[in-house]
Amino acid sequence: MTMSETTSNLTEAAVTETAAGGAHGYTSDKEAYLRRLRRIEGQVRGIARMVEEDKYCIDILTQVAAINKALHAVSLGLVQDHMSHCVVGAAQESERTGNPEIVQAKVQEAADAIGRLLR
Amino acid sequence: MTMSETTSNLTEAAVTETAAGGAHGYTSDKEAYLRRLRRIEGQVRGIARMVEEDKYCIDILTQVAAINKALHAVSLGLVQDHMSHCVVGAAQESERTGNPEIVQAKVQEAADAIGRLLR
Amino acid sequence: MTMSETTSNLTEAAVTETAAGGAHGYTSDKEAYLRRLRRIEGQVRGIARMVEEDKYCIDILTQVAAINKALHAVSLGLVQDHMSHCVVGAAQESERTGNPEIVQAKVQEAADAIGRLLR
Amino acid sequence: MTMSETTSNLTEAAVTETAAGGAHGYTSDKEAYLRRLRRIEGQVRGIARMVEEDKYCIDILTQVAAINKALHAVSLGLVQDHMSHCVVGAAQESERTGNPEIVQAKVQEAADAIGRLLR
Repeated sequence: MTMSETTSNLTEAAVTETAAGGAHGYTSDKEAYLRRLRRIEGQVRGIARMVEEDKYCIDILTQVAAINKALHAVSLGLVQDHMSHCVVGAAQESERTGNPEIVQAKVQEAADAIGRLLR
Repeated sequence: MTMSETTSNLTEAAVTETAAGGAHGYTSDKEAYLRRLRRIEGQVRGIARMVEEDKYCIDILTQVAAINKALHAVSLGLVQDHMSHCVVGAAQESERTGNPEIVQAKVQEAADAIGRLLR
Repeated sequence: MTMSETTSNLTEAAVTETAAGGAHGYTSDKEAYLRRLRRIEGQVRGIARMVEEDKYCIDILTQVAAINKALHAVSLGLVQDHMSHCVVGAAQESERTGNPEIVQAKVQEAADAIGRLLR
Repeated sequence: MTMSETTSNLTEAAVTETAAGGAHGYTSDKEAYLRRLRRIEGQVRGIARMVEEDKYCIDILTQVAAINKALHAVSLGLVQDHMSHCVVGAAQESERTGNPEIVQAKVQEAADAIGRLLR
Protein backbone atom coordinates (compact mmCIF):
# COMPACT_ATOMS: atom_id res chain seq x y z
CA MET A 1 0.00 0.00 0.00
CA THR A 2 1.23 3.44 -0.92
CA MET A 3 -0.79 5.47 1.54
CA SER A 4 1.88 8.00 2.41
CA GLU A 5 1.80 9.58 -1.00
CA THR A 6 -1.97 9.83 -1.08
CA THR A 7 -3.08 11.19 2.26
CA SER A 8 -2.14 14.79 1.51
CA ASN A 9 -5.38 16.26 0.18
CA LEU A 10 -8.15 13.98 1.33
CA THR A 11 -11.73 14.97 1.97
CA GLU A 12 -13.33 14.31 5.31
CA ALA A 13 -14.92 11.10 4.05
CA ALA A 14 -11.62 9.88 2.72
CA VAL A 15 -9.91 10.60 6.02
CA THR A 16 -12.53 8.45 7.70
CA GLU A 17 -11.77 5.75 5.20
CA THR A 18 -8.10 6.16 5.94
CA ALA A 19 -8.88 5.53 9.59
CA ALA A 20 -10.79 2.42 8.57
CA GLY A 21 -7.75 1.15 6.70
CA GLY A 22 -7.34 2.72 3.25
CA ALA A 23 -7.50 5.91 1.21
CA HIS A 24 -9.83 5.55 -1.77
CA GLY A 25 -10.71 1.95 -2.36
CA TYR A 26 -8.57 1.63 -5.44
CA THR A 27 -5.46 3.22 -3.98
CA SER A 28 -3.67 0.00 -3.20
CA ASP A 29 -4.26 -1.17 -6.77
CA LYS A 30 -3.39 2.14 -8.34
CA GLU A 31 -0.56 0.79 -10.44
CA ALA A 32 -2.70 -2.10 -11.67
CA TYR A 33 -5.48 0.32 -12.70
CA LEU A 34 -3.02 2.59 -14.45
CA ARG A 35 -1.55 -0.33 -16.36
CA ARG A 36 -5.00 -1.45 -17.49
CA LEU A 37 -6.00 2.06 -18.50
CA ARG A 38 -2.82 2.52 -20.49
CA ARG A 39 -3.59 -0.73 -22.30
CA ILE A 40 -7.14 0.43 -23.05
CA GLU A 41 -5.73 3.74 -24.32
CA GLY A 42 -3.47 1.74 -26.63
CA GLN A 43 -6.44 -0.32 -27.81
CA VAL A 44 -8.38 2.84 -28.69
CA ARG A 45 -5.34 4.13 -30.60
CA GLY A 46 -5.18 0.76 -32.35
CA ILE A 47 -8.76 1.15 -33.53
CA ALA A 48 -8.01 4.62 -34.87
CA ARG A 49 -5.10 3.09 -36.81
CA MET A 50 -7.43 0.41 -38.20
CA VAL A 51 -9.85 3.11 -39.39
CA GLU A 52 -6.96 5.06 -40.88
CA GLU A 53 -5.78 1.97 -42.78
CA ASP A 54 -9.32 1.11 -43.96
CA LYS A 55 -9.44 -2.19 -42.12
CA TYR A 56 -12.60 -4.26 -42.40
CA CYS A 57 -15.44 -2.86 -40.25
CA ILE A 58 -16.18 -6.20 -38.62
CA ASP A 59 -12.57 -6.48 -37.42
CA ILE A 60 -12.82 -2.99 -35.96
CA LEU A 61 -16.06 -3.94 -34.20
CA THR A 62 -14.30 -6.95 -32.68
CA GLN A 63 -11.70 -4.61 -31.21
CA VAL A 64 -14.39 -2.25 -29.91
CA ALA A 65 -16.02 -5.23 -28.14
CA ALA A 66 -12.65 -6.04 -26.56
CA ILE A 67 -12.36 -2.48 -25.23
CA ASN A 68 -15.91 -2.64 -23.86
CA LYS A 69 -14.92 -5.77 -21.99
CA ALA A 70 -11.71 -4.25 -20.63
CA LEU A 71 -13.63 -1.15 -19.48
CA HIS A 72 -16.23 -3.34 -17.80
CA ALA A 73 -13.48 -5.09 -15.87
CA VAL A 74 -12.04 -1.75 -14.74
CA SER A 75 -15.43 -0.42 -13.70
CA LEU A 76 -16.33 -3.61 -11.87
CA GLY A 77 -13.03 -3.38 -9.99
CA LEU A 78 -13.80 0.22 -9.02
CA VAL A 79 -17.31 -0.73 -7.89
CA GLN A 80 -15.91 -3.54 -5.75
CA ASP A 81 -13.25 -1.26 -4.28
CA HIS A 82 -15.90 1.35 -3.57
CA MET A 83 -18.02 -1.19 -1.70
CA SER A 84 -15.02 -2.65 0.16
CA HIS A 85 -13.83 0.70 1.36
CA CYS A 86 -16.32 3.54 1.09
CA VAL A 87 -19.57 1.63 1.79
CA VAL A 88 -18.07 -0.71 4.37
CA GLY A 89 -16.08 2.12 5.98
CA ALA A 90 -19.20 4.26 6.28
CA ALA A 91 -21.17 1.33 7.71
CA GLN A 92 -18.53 0.68 10.34
CA GLU A 93 -18.31 4.34 11.21
CA SER A 94 -22.10 4.50 11.58
CA GLU A 95 -21.94 1.54 13.93
CA ARG A 96 -19.45 3.43 16.10
CA THR A 97 -21.14 6.82 15.92
CA GLY A 98 -24.79 5.78 15.65
CA ASN A 99 -25.18 8.01 12.60
CA PRO A 100 -26.67 6.03 9.70
CA GLU A 101 -27.10 8.83 7.13
CA ILE A 102 -23.66 8.61 5.57
CA VAL A 103 -24.10 4.88 4.87
CA GLN A 104 -27.25 5.34 2.84
CA ALA A 105 -25.67 8.20 0.94
CA LYS A 106 -22.71 5.98 -0.01
CA VAL A 107 -25.01 3.11 -1.01
CA GLN A 108 -27.17 5.44 -3.10
CA GLU A 109 -24.11 6.87 -4.79
CA ALA A 110 -22.81 3.38 -5.59
CA ALA A 111 -26.21 2.27 -6.91
CA ASP A 112 -26.41 5.36 -9.14
CA ALA A 113 -22.93 4.65 -10.49
CA ILE A 114 -23.81 1.01 -11.19
CA GLY A 115 -27.02 2.14 -12.88
CA ARG A 116 -25.02 4.35 -15.22
CA LEU A 117 -22.81 1.37 -16.11
CA LEU A 118 -25.87 -0.79 -16.80
CA ARG A 119 -27.19 2.23 -18.73
CA MET B 1 -35.71 3.69 -5.35
CA THR B 2 -36.26 0.70 -3.12
CA MET B 3 -35.08 2.30 0.04
CA SER B 4 -38.41 3.27 1.54
CA GLU B 5 -37.47 1.60 4.80
CA THR B 6 -35.85 4.04 7.19
CA THR B 7 -32.17 3.76 7.76
CA SER B 8 -32.75 3.58 11.52
CA ASN B 9 -33.66 -0.09 11.57
CA LEU B 10 -30.92 -1.16 9.21
CA THR B 11 -29.08 -2.98 11.95
CA GLU B 12 -32.28 -4.67 13.04
CA ALA B 13 -32.89 -5.87 9.48
CA ALA B 14 -29.37 -7.18 9.22
CA VAL B 15 -29.71 -8.95 12.54
CA THR B 16 -32.97 -10.55 11.43
CA GLU B 17 -31.29 -11.76 8.30
CA THR B 18 -28.31 -13.10 10.19
CA ALA B 19 -30.45 -14.78 12.80
CA ALA B 20 -33.24 -16.23 10.68
CA GLY B 21 -31.71 -16.35 7.21
CA GLY B 22 -35.13 -15.31 5.93
CA ALA B 23 -35.56 -11.56 5.55
CA HIS B 24 -33.48 -9.84 2.90
CA GLY B 25 -32.88 -6.35 1.72
CA TYR B 26 -35.79 -6.37 -0.67
CA THR B 27 -38.31 -7.76 1.81
CA SER B 28 -39.92 -4.44 2.66
CA ASP B 29 -40.45 -3.73 -1.04
CA LYS B 30 -41.63 -7.21 -1.88
CA GLU B 31 -44.98 -6.09 -3.25
CA ALA B 32 -43.34 -3.48 -5.45
CA TYR B 33 -40.93 -6.08 -6.87
CA LEU B 34 -43.76 -8.54 -7.47
CA ARG B 35 -45.78 -5.91 -9.30
CA ARG B 36 -42.83 -5.05 -11.52
CA LEU B 37 -42.08 -8.70 -12.23
CA ARG B 38 -45.70 -9.39 -13.12
CA ARG B 39 -45.57 -6.49 -15.53
CA ILE B 40 -42.37 -7.83 -17.10
CA GLU B 41 -43.99 -11.26 -17.38
CA GLY B 42 -46.89 -9.61 -19.22
CA GLN B 43 -44.43 -7.83 -21.51
CA VAL B 44 -42.76 -11.13 -22.41
CA ARG B 45 -46.18 -12.64 -23.12
CA GLY B 46 -46.94 -9.59 -25.27
CA ILE B 47 -43.84 -10.25 -27.36
CA ALA B 48 -44.88 -13.89 -27.85
CA ARG B 49 -48.25 -12.62 -29.07
CA MET B 50 -46.49 -10.25 -31.50
CA VAL B 51 -44.46 -13.16 -32.89
CA GLU B 52 -47.62 -15.26 -33.13
CA GLU B 53 -49.36 -12.47 -35.07
CA ASP B 54 -46.34 -11.92 -37.36
CA LYS B 55 -45.75 -8.37 -36.21
CA TYR B 56 -42.86 -6.48 -37.72
CA CYS B 57 -39.48 -7.59 -36.30
CA ILE B 58 -38.38 -4.05 -35.51
CA ASP B 59 -41.49 -3.47 -33.38
CA ILE B 60 -40.75 -6.68 -31.50
CA LEU B 61 -37.16 -5.53 -30.93
CA THR B 62 -38.45 -2.28 -29.48
CA GLN B 63 -40.46 -4.27 -26.95
CA VAL B 64 -37.45 -6.46 -26.12
CA ALA B 65 -35.47 -3.28 -25.41
CA ALA B 66 -38.25 -2.14 -23.06
CA ILE B 67 -38.05 -5.44 -21.15
CA ASN B 68 -34.27 -5.14 -20.91
CA LYS B 69 -34.76 -1.73 -19.36
CA ALA B 70 -37.39 -2.95 -16.89
CA LEU B 71 -35.14 -5.86 -15.87
CA HIS B 72 -32.22 -3.50 -15.39
CA ALA B 73 -34.33 -1.41 -13.03
CA VAL B 74 -35.30 -4.50 -11.03
CA SER B 75 -31.72 -5.74 -10.82
CA LEU B 76 -30.41 -2.32 -9.86
CA GLY B 77 -33.00 -2.19 -7.07
CA LEU B 78 -31.89 -5.60 -5.84
CA VAL B 79 -28.22 -4.58 -5.93
CA GLN B 80 -29.00 -1.46 -3.93
CA ASP B 81 -31.04 -3.43 -1.41
CA HIS B 82 -28.24 -5.97 -1.13
CA MET B 83 -25.74 -3.22 -0.38
CA SER B 84 -28.08 -1.43 2.07
CA HIS B 85 -28.77 -4.55 4.04
CA CYS B 86 -26.40 -7.43 3.46
CA VAL B 87 -23.15 -5.53 2.87
CA VAL B 88 -23.86 -2.79 5.41
CA GLY B 89 -25.22 -5.30 7.94
CA ALA B 90 -22.12 -7.46 7.61
CA ALA B 91 -19.87 -4.40 7.94
CA GLN B 92 -21.65 -3.31 11.11
CA GLU B 93 -21.55 -6.78 12.55
CA SER B 94 -17.83 -7.02 11.79
CA GLU B 95 -17.33 -3.72 13.62
CA ARG B 96 -19.01 -5.21 16.70
CA THR B 97 -17.39 -8.62 16.53
CA GLY B 98 -14.02 -7.69 15.06
CA ASN B 99 -14.45 -10.36 12.37
CA PRO B 100 -13.89 -8.84 8.90
CA GLU B 101 -14.14 -11.99 6.77
CA ILE B 102 -17.89 -11.94 6.28
CA VAL B 103 -17.79 -8.36 4.92
CA GLN B 104 -15.38 -9.16 2.15
CA ALA B 105 -17.37 -12.26 1.26
CA LYS B 106 -20.54 -10.16 0.90
CA VAL B 107 -18.75 -7.52 -1.15
CA GLN B 108 -17.24 -10.16 -3.42
CA GLU B 109 -20.63 -11.78 -3.88
CA ALA B 110 -22.18 -8.44 -4.76
CA ALA B 111 -19.37 -7.60 -7.19
CA ASP B 112 -19.76 -11.00 -8.88
CA ALA B 113 -23.50 -10.42 -9.24
CA ILE B 114 -22.96 -6.95 -10.71
CA GLY B 115 -20.36 -8.41 -13.07
CA ARG B 116 -22.92 -10.90 -14.36
CA LEU B 117 -25.35 -8.03 -15.00
CA LEU B 118 -22.68 -6.06 -16.88
CA ARG B 119 -21.81 -9.34 -18.64
CA MET C 1 -41.98 -22.74 -43.55
CA THR C 2 -45.51 -21.86 -42.57
CA MET C 3 -46.09 -19.10 -45.04
CA SER C 4 -49.66 -20.01 -45.93
CA GLU C 5 -50.94 -19.02 -42.51
CA THR C 6 -49.08 -15.74 -42.48
CA THR C 7 -49.67 -14.11 -45.83
CA SER C 8 -53.17 -12.91 -45.00
CA ASN C 9 -52.59 -9.41 -43.68
CA LEU C 10 -49.17 -8.37 -44.85
CA THR C 11 -48.04 -4.84 -45.48
CA GLU C 12 -46.63 -3.88 -48.83
CA ALA C 13 -43.07 -4.30 -47.57
CA ALA C 14 -43.85 -7.75 -46.25
CA VAL C 15 -45.40 -8.76 -49.55
CA THR C 16 -42.19 -7.74 -51.26
CA GLU C 17 -40.31 -9.86 -48.78
CA THR C 18 -42.66 -12.73 -49.49
CA ALA C 19 -41.76 -12.39 -53.15
CA ALA C 20 -38.08 -12.47 -52.16
CA GLY C 21 -38.62 -15.73 -50.29
CA GLY C 22 -40.11 -15.16 -46.81
CA ALA C 23 -42.70 -13.28 -44.79
CA HIS C 24 -41.12 -11.53 -41.83
CA GLY C 25 -37.61 -12.73 -41.23
CA TYR C 26 -38.50 -14.70 -38.14
CA THR C 27 -41.53 -16.46 -39.60
CA SER C 28 -39.77 -19.70 -40.42
CA ASP C 29 -38.47 -19.86 -36.85
CA LYS C 30 -41.72 -18.81 -35.25
CA GLU C 31 -42.10 -21.92 -33.15
CA ALA C 32 -38.51 -21.70 -31.93
CA TYR C 33 -39.03 -18.05 -30.91
CA LEU C 34 -42.29 -18.89 -29.13
CA ARG C 35 -40.61 -21.71 -27.22
CA ARG C 36 -37.80 -19.42 -26.11
CA LEU C 37 -40.22 -16.67 -25.09
CA ARG C 38 -42.34 -19.11 -23.08
CA ARG C 39 -39.19 -20.21 -21.30
CA ILE C 40 -38.25 -16.61 -20.54
CA GLU C 41 -41.79 -15.99 -19.27
CA GLY C 42 -41.33 -18.98 -16.96
CA GLN C 43 -38.00 -17.59 -15.78
CA VAL C 44 -39.61 -14.26 -14.89
CA ARG C 45 -42.32 -16.12 -12.98
CA GLY C 46 -39.58 -18.10 -11.24
CA ILE C 47 -37.98 -14.86 -10.06
CA ALA C 48 -41.31 -13.61 -8.72
CA ARG C 49 -41.59 -16.87 -6.77
CA MET C 50 -38.07 -16.38 -5.39
CA VAL C 51 -39.02 -12.88 -4.20
CA GLU C 52 -42.24 -14.26 -2.70
CA GLU C 53 -40.27 -16.92 -0.81
CA ASP C 54 -37.63 -14.40 0.38
CA LYS C 55 -34.78 -16.08 -1.46
CA TYR C 56 -31.34 -14.54 -1.20
CA CYS C 57 -31.00 -11.39 -3.34
CA ILE C 58 -27.78 -12.58 -4.98
CA ASP C 59 -29.49 -15.76 -6.18
CA ILE C 60 -32.30 -13.66 -7.64
CA LEU C 61 -29.75 -11.45 -9.39
CA THR C 62 -28.15 -14.54 -10.92
CA GLN C 63 -31.52 -15.47 -12.39
CA VAL C 64 -32.06 -11.93 -13.68
CA ALA C 65 -28.69 -12.17 -15.44
CA ALA C 66 -29.82 -15.45 -17.04
CA ILE C 67 -32.97 -13.76 -18.36
CA ASN C 68 -30.93 -10.87 -19.73
CA LYS C 69 -28.82 -13.39 -21.60
CA ALA C 70 -31.85 -15.26 -22.96
CA LEU C 71 -33.41 -11.98 -24.12
CA HIS C 72 -30.17 -10.97 -25.80
CA ALA C 73 -30.19 -14.24 -27.71
CA VAL C 74 -33.78 -13.64 -28.85
CA SER C 75 -33.06 -10.07 -29.88
CA LEU C 76 -29.89 -11.04 -31.72
CA GLY C 77 -31.87 -13.69 -33.61
CA LEU C 78 -34.47 -11.09 -34.58
CA VAL C 79 -31.77 -8.65 -35.71
CA GLN C 80 -30.16 -11.34 -37.84
CA ASP C 81 -33.53 -12.35 -39.33
CA HIS C 82 -34.29 -8.70 -40.03
CA MET C 83 -31.02 -8.30 -41.89
CA SER C 84 -31.39 -11.60 -43.76
CA HIS C 85 -34.88 -10.80 -44.95
CA CYS C 86 -35.90 -7.18 -44.68
CA VAL C 87 -32.56 -5.47 -45.38
CA VAL C 88 -31.39 -7.99 -47.97
CA GLY C 89 -34.85 -8.13 -49.57
CA ALA C 90 -34.96 -4.35 -49.86
CA ALA C 91 -31.42 -4.28 -51.30
CA GLN C 92 -32.31 -6.86 -53.92
CA GLU C 93 -35.49 -5.06 -54.80
CA SER C 94 -33.60 -1.78 -55.16
CA GLU C 95 -31.18 -3.53 -57.52
CA ARG C 96 -34.12 -4.62 -59.67
CA THR C 97 -36.05 -1.34 -59.51
CA GLY C 98 -33.22 1.16 -59.23
CA ASN C 99 -34.88 2.71 -56.17
CA PRO C 100 -32.41 2.89 -53.27
CA GLU C 101 -34.54 4.76 -50.70
CA ILE C 102 -36.21 1.75 -49.15
CA VAL C 103 -32.84 0.11 -48.45
CA GLN C 104 -31.53 3.01 -46.43
CA ALA C 105 -34.80 3.23 -44.52
CA LYS C 106 -34.52 -0.46 -43.58
CA VAL C 107 -30.87 -0.08 -42.57
CA GLN C 108 -31.65 3.00 -40.48
CA GLU C 109 -34.52 1.19 -38.79
CA ALA C 110 -32.28 -1.79 -38.00
CA ALA C 111 -29.52 0.47 -36.67
CA ASP C 112 -31.99 2.30 -34.45
CA ALA C 113 -33.28 -1.01 -33.08
CA ILE C 114 -29.74 -2.24 -32.39
CA GLY C 115 -28.97 1.08 -30.70
CA ARG C 116 -31.91 0.57 -28.35
CA LEU C 117 -30.57 -2.89 -27.48
CA LEU C 118 -27.10 -1.47 -26.79
CA ARG C 119 -28.90 1.30 -24.88
CA MET D 1 -25.51 9.27 -38.11
CA THR D 2 -22.76 8.12 -40.39
CA MET D 3 -24.78 8.06 -43.53
CA SER D 4 -23.80 11.38 -45.00
CA GLU D 5 -22.90 9.69 -48.27
CA THR D 6 -25.82 9.69 -50.67
CA THR D 7 -27.59 6.44 -51.25
CA SER D 8 -27.12 6.86 -55.00
CA ASN D 9 -23.54 5.63 -55.05
CA LEU D 10 -24.15 2.73 -52.71
CA THR D 11 -23.65 0.22 -55.46
CA GLU D 12 -20.51 1.96 -56.59
CA ALA D 13 -19.11 1.79 -53.06
CA ALA D 14 -19.94 -1.88 -52.80
CA VAL D 15 -18.31 -2.56 -56.15
CA THR D 16 -15.18 -0.70 -55.07
CA GLU D 17 -15.03 -2.79 -51.96
CA THR D 18 -15.52 -6.01 -53.87
CA ALA D 19 -12.97 -5.06 -56.48
CA ALA D 20 -10.24 -3.56 -54.34
CA GLY D 21 -10.97 -4.95 -50.91
CA GLY D 22 -9.95 -1.57 -49.55
CA ALA D 23 -12.85 0.86 -49.17
CA HIS D 24 -15.41 0.05 -46.52
CA GLY D 25 -18.67 1.44 -45.30
CA TYR D 26 -17.08 3.88 -42.92
CA THR D 27 -14.58 5.26 -45.38
CA SER D 28 -16.50 8.40 -46.22
CA ASP D 29 -16.81 9.23 -42.53
CA LYS D 30 -13.23 8.35 -41.71
CA GLU D 31 -12.36 11.77 -40.35
CA ALA D 32 -15.46 11.79 -38.13
CA TYR D 33 -14.55 8.37 -36.73
CA LEU D 34 -10.96 9.40 -36.12
CA ARG D 35 -12.09 12.54 -34.29
CA ARG D 36 -14.39 10.51 -32.06
CA LEU D 37 -11.71 7.92 -31.36
CA ARG D 38 -9.18 10.59 -30.47
CA ARG D 39 -11.70 12.05 -28.04
CA ILE D 40 -12.29 8.62 -26.48
CA GLU D 41 -8.53 8.15 -26.21
CA GLY D 42 -8.36 11.47 -24.37
CA GLN D 43 -11.19 10.37 -22.06
CA VAL D 44 -9.28 7.17 -21.17
CA ARG D 45 -6.19 9.24 -20.47
CA GLY D 46 -8.34 11.52 -18.32
CA ILE D 47 -9.45 8.55 -16.23
CA ALA D 48 -5.84 7.46 -15.75
CA ARG D 49 -5.10 10.97 -14.52
CA MET D 50 -8.03 10.78 -12.09
CA VAL D 51 -6.66 7.51 -10.68
CA GLU D 52 -3.20 9.02 -10.45
CA GLU D 53 -4.59 12.00 -8.50
CA ASP D 54 -6.70 9.74 -6.21
CA LYS D 55 -10.00 11.17 -7.37
CA TYR D 56 -13.16 9.76 -5.86
CA CYS D 57 -14.04 6.33 -7.30
CA ILE D 58 -17.64 7.32 -8.08
CA ASP D 59 -16.44 10.23 -10.19
CA ILE D 60 -14.14 7.88 -12.08
CA LEU D 61 -17.04 5.48 -12.65
CA THR D 62 -19.08 8.33 -14.11
CA GLN D 63 -16.31 8.94 -16.63
CA VAL D 64 -16.10 5.23 -17.47
CA ALA D 65 -19.85 5.27 -18.18
CA ALA D 66 -19.31 8.23 -20.52
CA ILE D 67 -16.64 6.29 -22.44
CA ASN D 68 -18.93 3.26 -22.67
CA LYS D 69 -21.54 5.51 -24.22
CA ALA D 70 -19.09 7.06 -26.68
CA LEU D 71 -17.85 3.61 -27.71
CA HIS D 72 -21.42 2.42 -28.20
CA ALA D 73 -22.04 5.32 -30.54
CA VAL D 74 -18.92 4.46 -32.55
CA SER D 75 -19.81 0.79 -32.76
CA LEU D 76 -23.40 1.53 -33.73
CA GLY D 77 -22.11 3.78 -36.51
CA LEU D 78 -19.83 1.00 -37.75
CA VAL D 79 -22.67 -1.53 -37.65
CA GLN D 80 -24.88 0.81 -39.65
CA ASP D 81 -22.11 1.47 -42.17
CA HIS D 82 -21.49 -2.26 -42.45
CA MET D 83 -25.15 -2.89 -43.20
CA SER D 84 -25.39 0.05 -45.63
CA HIS D 85 -22.40 -1.04 -47.60
CA CYS D 86 -21.24 -4.58 -47.05
CA VAL D 87 -24.60 -6.31 -46.47
CA VAL D 88 -26.51 -4.23 -49.00
CA GLY D 89 -23.66 -4.45 -51.52
CA ALA D 90 -23.54 -8.22 -51.20
CA ALA D 91 -27.32 -8.45 -51.54
CA GLN D 92 -27.27 -6.37 -54.70
CA GLU D 93 -24.39 -8.34 -56.13
CA SER D 94 -26.21 -11.59 -55.39
CA GLU D 95 -29.25 -10.22 -57.20
CA ARG D 96 -27.09 -9.60 -60.27
CA THR D 97 -25.11 -12.84 -60.12
CA GLY D 98 -27.72 -15.17 -58.65
CA ASN D 99 -25.24 -16.25 -55.97
CA PRO D 100 -26.82 -15.89 -52.49
CA GLU D 101 -24.02 -17.37 -50.36
CA ILE D 102 -22.03 -14.20 -49.87
CA VAL D 103 -25.08 -12.35 -48.53
CA GLN D 104 -25.72 -14.81 -45.75
CA ALA D 105 -22.03 -14.83 -44.85
CA LYS D 106 -22.09 -11.02 -44.52
CA VAL D 107 -25.29 -11.11 -42.45
CA GLN D 108 -23.87 -13.81 -40.18
CA GLU D 109 -20.69 -11.82 -39.72
CA ALA D 110 -22.66 -8.70 -38.84
CA ALA D 111 -24.88 -10.62 -36.41
CA ASP D 112 -21.82 -12.13 -34.72
CA ALA D 113 -20.28 -8.67 -34.36
CA ILE D 114 -23.50 -7.25 -32.90
CA GLY D 115 -23.68 -10.23 -30.52
CA ARG D 116 -20.19 -9.42 -29.23
CA LEU D 117 -21.31 -5.83 -28.60
CA LEU D 118 -24.41 -7.01 -26.72
CA ARG D 119 -22.14 -9.52 -24.95
